[in-house]
Amino acid sequence: MSKNQNKNEAITDMNKDFTQWYTDVVKKAELIDYSPVRGCVVLRPYGYGIWELIQKQLDTMFKETGHENVYMPMFIPKSLLQKEADHVEGFAPEVLTITKAGEEDLADPLCIRPTSEVLFCEHFKDAIQSYRDLPKLYNQWCSVVRWEKTTRPFLRTTEFLWQEGHTAHATEEEARLEAKNMLEVYKDFFENVLAIPVIRGLKSEKEKFAGAVETYTIESMMHDGKALQSGTSHYLGNGFAKAFDITFTDKENKLTHVHQTSWGVSTRMIGGLIMVHGDNNGLILPPKIAPTQVIIIPIAQNKEGVINAANSLYEKLKKDFRIKLDTTDKTPGFKFSEYEMKGVPLRLELGPKDIEAGQAVLARRDNGEKKIVSLENIEKEIAKILEEIQKSLYEKAKEAKEAKTYKINTMNEFAETITNKQGFIKAMWCESGECEEKIKKDFGATIRCLPYEQEIISETCICCNSKASKQVIFAKAY
Amino acid sequence: MSKNQNKNEAITDMNKDFTQWYTDVVKKAELIDYSPVRGCVVLRPYGYGIWELIQKQLDTMFKETGHENVYMPMFIPKSLLQKEADHVEGFAPEVLTITKAGEEDLADPLCIRPTSEVLFCEHFKDAIQSYRDLPKLYNQWCSVVRWEKTTRPFLRTTEFLWQEGHTAHATEEEARLEAKNMLEVYKDFFENVLAIPVIRGLKSEKEKFAGAVETYTIESMMHDGKALQSGTSHYLGNGFAKAFDITFTDKENKLTHVHQTSWGVSTRMIGGLIMVHGDNNGLILPPKIAPTQVIIIPIAQNKEGVINAANSLYEKLKKDFRIKLDTTDKTPGFKFSEYEMKGVPLRLELGPKDIEAGQAVLARRDNGEKKIVSLENIEKEIAKILEEIQKSLYEKAKEAKEAKTYKINTMNEFAETITNKQGFIKAMWCESGECEEKIKKDFGATIRCLPYEQEIISETCICCNSKASKQVIFAKAY
Repeated sequence: MSKNQNKNEAITDMNKDFTQWYTDVVKKAELIDYSPVRGCVVLRPYGYGIWELIQKQLDTMFKETGHENVYMPMFIPKSLLQKEADHVEGFAPEVLTITKAGEEDLADPLCIRPTSEVLFCEHFKDAIQSYRDLPKLYNQWCSVVRWEKTTRPFLRTTEFLWQEGHTAHATEEEARLEAKNMLEVYKDFFENVLAIPVIRGLKSEKEKFAGAVETYTIESMMHDGKALQSGTSHYLGNGFAKAFDITFTDKENKLTHVHQTSWGVSTRMIGGLIMVHGDNNGLILPPKIAPTQVIIIPIAQNKEGVINAANSLYEKLKKDFRIKLDTTDKTPGFKFSEYEMKGVPLRLELGPKDIEAGQAVLARRDNGEKKIVSLENIEKEIAKILEEIQKSLYEKAKEAKEAKTYKINTMNEFAETITNKQGFIKAMWCESGECEEKIKKDFGATIRCLPYEQEIISETCICCNSKASKQVIFAKAY
Repeated sequence: MSKNQNKNEAITDMNKDFTQWYTDVVKKAELIDYSPVRGCVVLRPYGYGIWELIQKQLDTMFKETGHENVYMPMFIPKSLLQKEADHVEGFAPEVLTITKAGEEDLADPLCIRPTSEVLFCEHFKDAIQSYRDLPKLYNQWCSVVRWEKTTRPFLRTTEFLWQEGHTAHATEEEARLEAKNMLEVYKDFFENVLAIPVIRGLKSEKEKFAGAVETYTIESMMHDGKALQSGTSHYLGNGFAKAFDITFTDKENKLTHVHQTSWGVSTRMIGGLIMVHGDNNGLILPPKIAPTQVIIIPIAQNKEGVINAANSLYEKLKKDFRIKLDTTDKTPGFKFSEYEMKGVPLRLELGPKDIEAGQAVLARRDNGEKKIVSLENIEKEIAKILEEIQKSLYEKAKEAKEAKTYKINTMNEFAETITNKQGFIKAMWCESGECEEKIKKDFGATIRCLPYEQEIISETCICCNSKASKQVIFAKAY
């Protein structure tokens, strides 16, 4: 059987039907279960386990950069949500409204938070009086709700888990810096933990957050060449502060409005993990985010001493790794497929002959490579291989992204590329909403961002040929 | 100034008005802020910090006992909530209902979870097929919503944070054991981490969870002698399994209904911490749950070398303790009051004379004791004192509870005690709902539980004088 052949007949070939492959993987890897609530899923232990590792590592990064966690109510009185005009216009169509409590009708209906800017604003209004109270660097882990027409597990669900950072600053300069710094935190997390390369950039006016002055984004490329907006950070200016009257007395004793930011990433990242690293045998998880990094599978476990040896190896290794031992009565072959489907980075096989020879077999999930290692210094060997897998997944994803990134100069070439190749198209843009809209309408491709690293391809807009000084990335997106 | 005198004029004397004292403390210690949503509060960084430490430590205990975390949707279709009759009857009056999504009216309105039994049941129905799939030992950290008439921060809010465990088992015996074991986990956590002594027992039929066969509870006593139901664990029998058709094929290949449990504790625990340990200077936190265990306050910090010395001490100690250094320009006296209000267990004072003598002053929050210690082995000294504080808070709470626990034999004595003394009343009960109801109506006291440790006081019911074999605890409760 060749390395790339699909051993598990139950999942669809990703090259034939990527969408169905994705749906098969989320279910077969036991990440989610469908729920009786439209557009909502159940995060099963394995799926939630990934989220717990995401939370733990991101939370540490937030705290190291001076942020504190808080918790705001999940409800927003309808009257309050309407205070910032752009913001309410952006979210109103997606908001769920509560009109009844028990048998009682509510006078001011409650909305379920689609995001919590207005609640943070209400709190800041009270908590901020003087420059001494600034900056406020807050974050919260919670779920938010947006009523979406079409939903897909992790990528777009009615309710989803996320973190939302909300900060208030004395100056515009400081707030802009915060928004940019948090994008760097996200980039670091994506590249070094999730092993997903990202492009940093600015959103166009049309694509920016409802109520923001500027939205920074990280965009990543999925296996099929489509883009995933993976995290955003907004400089909100002082518009919310003016709408909500958030002022402070500055050092010159002058009453001034604060400048704010907000930033968030969500369980959507798990969708990204699946679509960047997965293959026809299922999920592939980078070791840093894998709930189980090593699975021990005893071979011929009914033979005397095998289970015992597997057990002592497990006990020895569990201090250093997230490791499991599977001694159920399924066949080794069945177990191999199961943990491949779940994307466990490293399989450790241990049979009677191995025990006799004081060795074990290590098999990598990402490339199928097997290695026989001595039990004596197996910890070091495992640590080394896990590190290699982490690096190699990132490199592979980076190569895939680069292979599907095109520099395009003419509309003909653009049409050909977006239709037949998919991927990221680097092209020049005149910054007009009309050109942006035209390309979206004609090809279903959007401006993902104006990348930080500008590559000037020509001097004219790809769409209208008028003068253009900005390079953007066009792509179809999830 | 005497030790018990109220140094901070802004808070009410707890002996004059305990309710107002509580309200003052939650606000002044910056645990919460009021929100624009009826009955909901904002958990500020200090309040949420306590919750994070609770979560971290409880979560470890749950995982050590084999439980896995999951996440269920926050919505329950109205039709689904109505499937288990007792359950819906218990919760219906408190449920918030969503009727509108954007501008669209919902055909089957969505309820916001007041608790998630029915969602777990729906999932179990699919995920459990064979005895091999059992037990399922799940937990989730989330918020739930109950529309309450009167609310108080932490004790009773419309939305509150909690954990809810949900498990499914092959046999009644195993499920009953699980429900009892989780009560032991709660007891352990309360006594060893929160330093709050608890009484374990069984709830009466009237007080048990809507849909449960049996509810186990831990009850704790607040400073004012009132009870706080602090955690509950329910053996649900197979009633939910029958209503939701959760069956499995057992080892004899017979289709059988599972037996279930659920158990939960909430941010209510923080209310307990405040009301058990606090005093007229504010909050007192046990070191194991204190976001800041030690606060370093430099004395005469403008003198050369003081800030530097405080900084290096901070750097040296931060590996071992949750510690902060306050170098703001407030006076030391102001800072003392502030951290006393926040209940930081230990204050470390460091001034020019201390630095010269190679020493520091340690002041305990719980009893005001001061000790001069050498900087050389200060880590050991701090660790020792924190341990002493932890123990001493538990002992003090236990003594307070015992001092306000009364064995009562007659209704006259009962009336006198519950009216004038408050506290826990141990008395005999005939197990009739009428007597339970009568005492509730006459005195506002409820049966908190039938304690595990039965103390047979007489042979007749305190209320009706008929034969009684069960000893219960009566108290007024939050």
